Amino acid sequence: MADVNKVVLAYSGGLDTSVILKWLQETYGCEVVTFTADLGQGEEVEPARAKAQKLGVKEIYIEDLREEFVRDFVFPMFRANAIYEGEYLLGTSIARPLIAKRLVEIANQTGADAVSHGATGKGNDQVRFELGAYALKPGIQVIAPWREWDLTSRERLLAYAEQHGIPIERHGHKSPYSMDANLLHISYEGGILEDPWAEAEESMWRWSVSPEQAPDAPTYVELTFARGDVVAIDGEAMSPAAVLTKLNELGGANGIGRLDIVENRYVGMKSRGCYETPGGTILMKAHRAIESITLDREAAHLKDELMPRYASLIYNGYWWSPERRMLQAMIDASQTPVNGVVRLKLYKGGVSVAGRKSDDSLFDASIATFEDDAGAYDQKDAAGFIKLNALRLRIAAARGRQA
Amino acid sequence: MADVNKVVLAYSGGLDTSVILKWLQETYGCEVVTFTADLGQGEEVEPARAKAQKLGVKEIYIEDLREEFVRDFVFPMFRANAIYEGEYLLGTSIARPLIAKRLVEIANQTGADAVSHGATGKGNDQVRFELGAYALKPGIQVIAPWREWDLTSRERLLAYAEQHGIPIERHGHKSPYSMDANLLHISYEGGILEDPWAEAEESMWRWSVSPEQAPDAPTYVELTFARGDVVAIDGEAMSPAAVLTKLNELGGANGIGRLDIVENRYVGMKSRGCYETPGGTILMKAHRAIESITLDREAAHLKDELMPRYASLIYNGYWWSPERRMLQAMIDASQTPVNGVVRLKLYKGGVSVAGRKSDDSLFDASIATFEDDAGAYDQKDAAGFIKLNALRLRIAAARGRQA
Amino acid sequence: MADVNKVVLAYSGGLDTSVILKWLQETYGCEVVTFTADLGQGEEVEPARAKAQKLGVKEIYIEDLREEFVRDFVFPMFRANAIYEGEYLLGTSIARPLIAKRLVEIANQTGADAVSHGATGKGNDQVRFELGAYALKPGIQVIAPWREWDLTSRERLLAYAEQHGIPIERHGHKSPYSMDANLLHISYEGGILEDPWAEAEESMWRWSVSPEQAPDAPTYVELTFARGDVVAIDGEAMSPAAVLTKLNELGGANGIGRLDIVENRYVGMKSRGCYETPGGTILMKAHRAIESITLDREAAHLKDELMPRYASLIYNGYWWSPERRMLQAMIDASQTPVNGVVRLKLYKGGVSVAGRKSDDSLFDASIATFEDDAGAYDQKDAAGFIKLNALRLRIAAARGRQA
Amino acid sequence: MADVNKVVLAYSGGLDTSVILKWLQETYGCEVVTFTADLGQGEEVEPARAKAQKLGVKEIYIEDLREEFVRDFVFPMFRANAIYEGEYLLGTSIARPLIAKRLVEIANQTGADAVSHGATGKGNDQVRFELGAYALKPGIQVIAPWREWDLTSRERLLAYAEQHGIPIERHGHKSPYSMDANLLHISYEGGILEDPWAEAEESMWRWSVSPEQAPDAPTYVELTFARGDVVAIDGEAMSPAAVLTKLNELGGANGIGRLDIVENRYVGMKSRGCYETPGGTILMKAHRAIESITLDREAAHLKDELMPRYASLIYNGYWWSPERRMLQAMIDASQTPVNGVVRLKLYKGGVSVAGRKSDDSLFDASIATFEDDAGAYDQKDAAGFIKLNALRLRIAAARGRQA
Repeated sequence: MADVNKVVLAYSGGLDTSVILKWLQETYGCEVVTFTADLGQGEEVEPARAKAQKLGVKEIYIEDLREEFVRDFVFPMFRANAIYEGEYLLGTSIARPLIAKRLVEIANQTGADAVSHGATGKGNDQVRFELGAYALKPGIQVIAPWREWDLTSRERLLAYAEQHGIPIERHGHKSPYSMDANLLHISYEGGILEDPWAEAEESMWRWSVSPEQAPDAPTYVELTFARGDVVAIDGEAMSPAAVLTKLNELGGANGIGRLDIVENRYVGMKSRGCYETPGGTILMKAHRAIESITLDREAAHLKDELMPRYASLIYNGYWWSPERRMLQAMIDASQTPVNGVVRLKLYKGGVSVAGRKSDDSLFDASIATFEDDAGAYDQKDAAGFIKLNALRLRIAAARGRQA
Repeated sequence: MADVNKVVLAYSGGLDTSVILKWLQETYGCEVVTFTADLGQGEEVEPARAKAQKLGVKEIYIEDLREEFVRDFVFPMFRANAIYEGEYLLGTSIARPLIAKRLVEIANQTGADAVSHGATGKGNDQVRFELGAYALKPGIQVIAPWREWDLTSRERLLAYAEQHGIPIERHGHKSPYSMDANLLHISYEGGILEDPWAEAEESMWRWSVSPEQAPDAPTYVELTFARGDVVAIDGEAMSPAAVLTKLNELGGANGIGRLDIVENRYVGMKSRGCYETPGGTILMKAHRAIESITLDREAAHLKDELMPRYASLIYNGYWWSPERRMLQAMIDASQTPVNGVVRLKLYKGGVSVAGRKSDDSLFDASIATFEDDAGAYDQKDAAGFIKLNALRLRIAAARGRQA
Repeated sequence: MADVNKVVLAYSGGLDTSVILKWLQETYGCEVVTFTADLGQGEEVEPARAKAQKLGVKEIYIEDLREEFVRDFVFPMFRANAIYEGEYLLGTSIARPLIAKRLVEIANQTGADAVSHGATGKGNDQVRFELGAYALKPGIQVIAPWREWDLTSRERLLAYAEQHGIPIERHGHKSPYSMDANLLHISYEGGILEDPWAEAEESMWRWSVSPEQAPDAPTYVELTFARGDVVAIDGEAMSPAAVLTKLNELGGANGIGRLDIVENRYVGMKSRGCYETPGGTILMKAHRAIESITLDREAAHLKDELMPRYASLIYNGYWWSPERRMLQAMIDASQTPVNGVVRLKLYKGGVSVAGRKSDDSLFDASIATFEDDAGAYDQKDAAGFIKLNALRLRIAAARGRQA
Repeated sequence: MADVNKVVLAYSGGLDTSVILKWLQETYGCEVVTFTADLGQGEEVEPARAKAQKLGVKEIYIEDLREEFVRDFVFPMFRANAIYEGEYLLGTSIARPLIAKRLVEIANQTGADAVSHGATGKGNDQVRFELGAYALKPGIQVIAPWREWDLTSRERLLAYAEQHGIPIERHGHKSPYSMDANLLHISYEGGILEDPWAEAEESMWRWSVSPEQAPDAPTYVELTFARGDVVAIDGEAMSPAAVLTKLNELGGANGIGRLDIVENRYVGMKSRGCYETPGGTILMKAHRAIESITLDREAAHLKDELMPRYASLIYNGYWWSPERRMLQAMIDASQTPVNGVVRLKLYKGGVSVAGRKSDDSLFDASIATFEDDAGAYDQKDAAGFIKLNALRLRIAAARGRQA
């Protein structure tokens, strides 16, 4: 066991991380610094202060990181249209690098030599926390209690809590799902979801009404983009976090953004997950739409071809890597002209594009028109274009090559 | 002007290709062979016979190609989860190589030295027809009247038709849209769509009810896959074309598969298009779902990374190319285990996955579980996994490299 | 034929472009501005002035662009380790965008409405010139005489020259090869090279001695890199053009950089080409060597995977495109730490690396050592690393999946 | 420690694996089966029998796998033109999957429940052996003594050997390098190579003369390819292993195939390695040359773009993975027309192509020629080709977009 003097713990204030807090004090005999962040998960963070104090913590960090989260993590990721495995909008993945960064910064400020988190040894989050921590502070110690301790069942965990006077909140019943939330999404795993044939229960979903319960009339909304990011909704300028908050409201009310998938974890197994990403789902559709009129074709295709790799990097925890930065430089270099307005229709779970316009539009009706284009485009050029593109195929066919 | 004796024309029986038929006879003084295919466009093909006969055609080919179309073109493409520019399911693109193939085969059978089609000089279809024709018969002549003649306005075209006794059907009013249809989709271009800010009119859509008009109760359907293709719906075995026909019915009735995009044509311009792909939209969702439990992670990611290129090849007309065949070999090599059943919920424009199961499933609940896994997975392995994946990042950070 | 008032001609002063000059004056009745650049082709550019004057040209541009060429085009390209089709260092390709840029700038300065060049309709250079011109000045007219005129044989060309008083230099005999040269390379096409089975004659090569004639003792040289570019040779700081000039001397004297390939042109045909790239061959080897110790693994692999596409973009003439700029942004973002010294051995056509060192080196002997590493690396981590990387393979194998 | 009854050991007969043999018997109290393969490493394998017998082994497998190695592993890899990090021909990497396969097969035959190897915990080989073993037999135990035992210095190892009566051969002096050899290459690591600035000593190299010592006259050789593999040398048909043996002789005699690099290991560190791959270096050059005239451009480019990934898969040990098989299917699908003859010049470390010919050649002199092509290619087609390829760039430039 490593020799640790002070450890910064990513602390939610809940039972699990409270047990971890105590366990770290007991097992490592070290001082614990707690770090609790408001990333838009929808729960109060301030109560964590009293809980930490009660457990003897002297250095308590409680921070509202919502603006930084959306501005520096969510928005750059959406510039890439990042989707993991064709479906997943990376809601959990994108929050981890920010937490890792703050853990390390607080370790530097407080002179801590270790960080700790409550992620299990089976999931992706441990990887994301720890790759980030190692990349930002190579000599850091990382303590992952779930990989070390013997509190491997809920019974043992509860027993440990009781034994150490950690309060167990019994109001309401415990959700059968393992959940994670931030301003971009809420996720559900475990319980009946462990059977991929079982449909998720309606009662599970927390952020959105069902499409069936959504209003019978569509909602229209206009998003204004500047350099690839949304800067206004229905003409009203907003901060990044305000944009996402508003889109979550709109999406949630219209039953938008539910997803039920089986995904491939970086640690090698498949897992079932359900996600609600109301605002992100709207944002993705809108970003593609504004790009569709402002981005050059080959720029867009290059982005599309590299997107799966970029998404995997984020999913696997490599935000703080040179390759992610290189791809980000490439993506950001494309976004200067991605300005304009997208009009969307939201209706019972669906988002569709009703219009898009931009001063930077490359759509040229005078060329594309089915009507007379007054010579803007010479159709005869197409013959040569096709002939030369076909040349290699013709030469091969002339030699009897199967097409 | 090329010296042509006999030309095979892709003939719909409509006004435009009837004018082309006449124009070819007059301009090239050549015999015209007509080829009319039922690809599931939803219009009778047999009436084309009388029209062609009336215009003096002696060799008339009218064929039902629906099964070949779905089996050899649509299904192989869906194995790749092919989507162009993040949105478009390639409904028009995928029909063209089959038409090109039959044009060439008929040219070989009838001793024709040329083929002709009714695609304009501004679009993608000319490229798709002609690349296919050249790849399959390198010495073929291609006549693209829209690039050659001076009938560049509808008035001139109508005047030519009138002058040559080609009947102009005046029942009903002409649609303001340029449309194309086959069993996979129907497309709309032109008219008010040439303004990307204008929302498509509800009256435009032909194959689906609006989400608003769709039933208030969801429809559930189960698709059975074998080697990546759907072979049964709700347990009933069906041929490829029957599968797609049935999915179109289900999708159309539930308002599924409408799409409104601005896309980048191969000839270099952006164009607005609206598409209805009811069955294809369901199929895509289902195929990804069955792959999610049966496909290895890296196999799936490799497919995802190459998908945009594969989709571009089809969009650009390179079905009959060695690179498309190579990618197909790679994709098909992955589909052996893609077997099982996907249960889908269809509701007011949305398709969501309600369950998936397979004898070839790689989902292993005993490993993924949040409960005790009885040693199936050793969480301590994760520490080494993370440590070595972080090693390069740590070495760089230790040298002061910015993460 | 287009209406042209003034045209800027890429003018070498040689017979072909002199004929073009005259032909433009005669055919288009327009004023001709000549542009002659020293790109390091090894021939005097100043004589072009008198020739142009004699043909009545009033605006004559003669410029030494060697530094700009190497600094802004060659060096950025070598940061990418760009090689086309596994062999070709893109010597001709990389000069064209600079010429296109200057043609357009001179057109803007002189109020010309067209540019012209002496590239044929079969090659890549026409594409490179014209894509560049169109990208930089979309309304420009491009006149490519070889695609327009009827001087399609050397006899007719000579007759035209004689008829119009254009001097034909008869000293020495005309090379049987079509050649192109700049500071990066000299190329040979045509003549006996049109038979891919025929070996190039020793007498063809102009810039390098044969390996057989090279010195019997090796030459060692040290190149110093800063941010991916060579800034000093054997400790002596040099400008970009001076670096490449010096490397050409060293390479040429040691028989380095000859290449004989069959390549695929963008216009669809295969062509045989021979190239001498003495300095570039050394530079490529050295750049990879300095990257090998300073670049992160995944950064290097990302570059390697995108290199063929980047190389194709340059080969095909897309230097002035958004996608090339995006890739360049990505590449340049990786080069900050690419600093240090590479020691090379040059011997009879071969370049080998004798050593590399850098203050930014990520090579850590204390970790890599076969000797005791004093705990820098815990070998037990490897077990978990392998176990988790193998997990998906094991799950598949356990279900009977063929590996 | 795992409970093991019988283990199959990859046994060279040398000191290290003899110590491992003993250590396995002692530590695990299990029976050891030895497996010794002739992969062309240039040492007798039969002496391993007596050594194993002396150590009490009852089941001894000694096999000549050279043909299988070249036919099923080396040749398929060369079809891909696989090079890791721009330089390394993967000589060690490609032998490991075959050894893993035979270890597992022998385990199945002998009822062993474990396999063991002599690779350290710092290198790539452990990963390659073990990923292969797990992929082929998911329940197998793997024992990697170097990651487990405390014989972490040469002194301790020798002491253990002496103590257990394992003969230490003292004839000659021990090489200062860690070496690995098979029919494709020999590698050197460690010793002074741990300083990347130090030049490798001439005395280190074993398989090739130095370029300086190579003959003063070049050697010409002709390789005949069928479906991408060499089937004859100078017209004489040969088996795969005979081909590689012969090419090694030719290459070694001419100083060909030495390489000195710093590479990135999969486990996260950089390491210096020197390699001699005489035959492989010739083969790579020849394979690219025959592809240059027989492969379609886009087929070749697709291969080039995926090659780095394919090479990484092999380097990292994923031969027995679905993604490698998918890529192989794609590559093999391209090799049907890769037939013909390549003539090479070997001279003092260099390999250059002197000619290539094929009945499947796509090189068409009548089109590529600088002479009159009799209408085979219409240069005017190029104007349309360029115009449409430029269209998107012109539209963007017309809107003031920077090129």
